[in-house]
Amino acid sequence: MQPSPFRTSAERKADREQKREAVLLAAVRMFNDRGFHAASLDDVAASLGVSKPTIYHYLGNKDQVLLECVTRGVEQMRAAAEEAHGLSGTGLDRLRSFLRRYSQITMGDFGRCVIRTSDEALSAESGARFRAVKRDIDTAMRSLLRAGIEDGSIAPLDVKLTAFTVAGALNWPARWHRADGDCSPEALSAQMVDILTQGLAPRE
Amino acid sequence: MQPSPFRTSAERKADREQKREAVLLAAVRMFNDRGFHAASLDDVAASLGVSKPTIYHYLGNKDQVLLECVTRGVEQMRAAAEEAHGLSGTGLDRLRSFLRRYSQITMGDFGRCVIRTSDEALSAESGARFRAVKRDIDTAMRSLLRAGIEDGSIAPLDVKLTAFTVAGALNWPARWHRADGDCSPEALSAQMVDILTQGLAPRE
Repeated sequence: MQPSPFRTSAERKADREQKREAVLLAAVRMFNDRGFHAASLDDVAASLGVSKPTIYHYLGNKDQVLLECVTRGVEQMRAAAEEAHGLSGTGLDRLRSFLRRYSQITMGDFGRCVIRTSDEALSAESGARFRAVKRDIDTAMRSLLRAGIEDGSIAPLDVKLTAFTVAGALNWPARWHRADGDCSPEALSAQMVDILTQGLAPRE
Repeated sequence: MQPSPFRTSAERKADREQKREAVLLAAVRMFNDRGFHAASLDDVAASLGVSKPTIYHYLGNKDQVLLECVTRGVEQMRAAAEEAHGLSGTGLDRLRSFLRRYSQITMGDFGRCVIRTSDEALSAESGARFRAVKRDIDTAMRSLLRAGIEDGSIAPLDVKLTAFTVAGALNWPARWHRADGDCSPEALSAQMVDILTQGLAPRE
């Protein structure tokens, strides 16, 4: 029997998924490069050689596209937090593992979009969802900090303020690090986490 | 002799300066609250009960206004660096003094604008000037770090990466701290600098 010239339902689904991913990746890179306001779905469409309705078909309007981009990034961060929670070792060990991974994510396409997107760029409803998922990441970071303070591997610091300080330091490269730069995300994240763990003052 | 009903040249100059300052302050607060793209000079004018040409008269176009706002902020940071350089004490003492002041500036109107403004918001020429003055602040921070490493008060860290990490941590409140919040810029900056100096791991 000759193979059918028609694609199976599974093949059509896989094809659709692949195209959707390509559109999403082109969009997030446009947002990161130009800023959300300056980026247009027309340009995203043009960069893929398709029409703007094709973008709408796969992803919806600009607000929906941005919400999906930042949600992807936050999901990566949440997965990193869950993985770190399941590790053995001290609270500081688990926190360091999470922070290194978190930092690497902020230098990737979707994580970078999380950091570079201000709530006001989204519609009221999408902005509220974005804030809610970001809060989960903050909660996970504080929980790891508390575990370390309890087992003595982290100094008895103010948990909220420390989480903000650490996140601030690690979020910064999303604004300047270039994928084609001379410092890899892995090396950069490891060194930043060492600085935050050890502090500026020398240890005896 | 009766006082002249006409103002002196000095009085007119002082009056003009005062009005110019009021316009600049209204503009920087509008930029910080709404973001540069969403803020309009029409709204700045309306908030002061004047016309848009009045804004142009005192400050120029939107790009010129933004450049003046960020230049003011960077000037405050530069003054803080110069003051710290002149202090006695170890390199770490001087760096800590600078970092506390730097952090407080980032929570003020003009400093906040420095942190929240991306180069692309400005015209090519203004963006280049902005990058140049920001580089001076980075240079000053690295110079204080090197002095501390040389006198042994700071661990032998990678100066460039440490400057980025510290600046990243201290720049973060410009995105979330509210002047009417329950933590003063002074208290917040002192605690953040302590965390960065001491590190997360307990010291013996």
